[in-house]
Amino acid sequence: MIQETIVTTQNSQGITHIAPMGIHVDGENFIILPFRPSTTLNNFLETKVGVINYCDDVRVFAGCLTGRRDWPLKPAQEISGKVLECALAHAEVELIRIEEDATRPKLFCKTLHTVNNAPFKGFNRAQFSVLEAAILISRLELLPLQKIESEIEYLRIGLEKTAGERELESWGWIMEVLNNYKRKTVA
Amino acid sequence: MIQETIVTTQNSQGITHIAPMGIHVDGENFIILPFRPSTTLNNFLETKVGVINYCDDVRVFAGCLTGRRDWPLKPAQEISGKVLECALAHAEVELIRIEEDATRPKLFCKTLHTVNNAPFKGFNRAQFSVLEAAILISRLELLPLQKIESEIEYLRIGLEKTAGERELESWGWIMEVLNNYKRKTVA
Repeated sequence: MIQETIVTTQNSQGITHIAPMGIHVDGENFIILPFRPSTTLNNFLETKVGVINYCDDVRVFAGCLTGRRDWPLKPAQEISGKVLECALAHAEVELIRIEEDATRPKLFCKTLHTVNNAPFKGFNRAQFSVLEAAILISRLELLPLQKIESEIEYLRIGLEKTAGERELESWGWIMEVLNNYKRKTVA
Repeated sequence: MIQETIVTTQNSQGITHIAPMGIHVDGENFIILPFRPSTTLNNFLETKVGVINYCDDVRVFAGCLTGRRDWPLKPAQEISGKVLECALAHAEVELIRIEEDATRPKLFCKTLHTVNNAPFKGFNRAQFSVLEAAILISRLELLPLQKIESEIEYLRIGLEKTAGERELESWGWIMEVLNNYKRKTVA
């Protein structure tokens, strides 16, 4: 099973990196597959710890994919690391084993500590629309534009019916990237 | 903003009814719009209280729409009512005002008590695929079959990439209903 989360890691200078990642759930533990090269991979290799943030604020997902990487953080409880302030829950994890791969090494992580910060508020269809649209624009160069646009139109239905302010703001950021890309490819 | 939740209500004999509902969030309070006639509406009118369950087990959503309405319950804490055992969080609410409507009266509900039962585990694309597919099959008689099938094919992508066992089981129930409907309409 793959959960869409925000992974926060730090390098040895204590600089935090915030990255949306789909992680594999393996009982209480996790397998994280960062691309090679990536800051998340470097940080895990340097400091061996990270935080998996369970976050329902889709602005963090859409923001990180549209150049907005600065989100409020607070210290982790049992590791030297940082937690997203908006995380409903989080897991503080330790890297225990690496399975090498030229593109995406597998980082096997053990959960040291789990914190339940705030209650889940139920599913929101607009959050899913934002998440899927964010994944689509991260593949602008790989997918046919027509396919992207027809999927965006489908996702817009759930968005318009159920969004709150956070979802509408995120959607706007994604549409800005899509429209810039369209202008660039037509020009 | 509309959240997809499971609403549990009871009649004056204490019989619980479990219903998936999209509810409108209004700060700490909620507006529930049950159809007329419906058991949820009758129960709110009879006993004036209910529970909004924030549940990430999509089997409850898919199950209630495919004839599986029996899910484990436990007593609410501050009202006479029942909570889904699988709810990550829940709100115990009281009906304070009704805005009449021939199809969907608006039930304005005040939150009496909120409980955070278990941590949110992050977004899962397959859960949203199940939720959207469940909504689609609840509209089998209203939407063109071709539209339903093309949306199902789109939703299947996220499902196959990220599902756990609960999501796969739910998807199977939904596909069974869709296939039965197709056999019936072709015959």
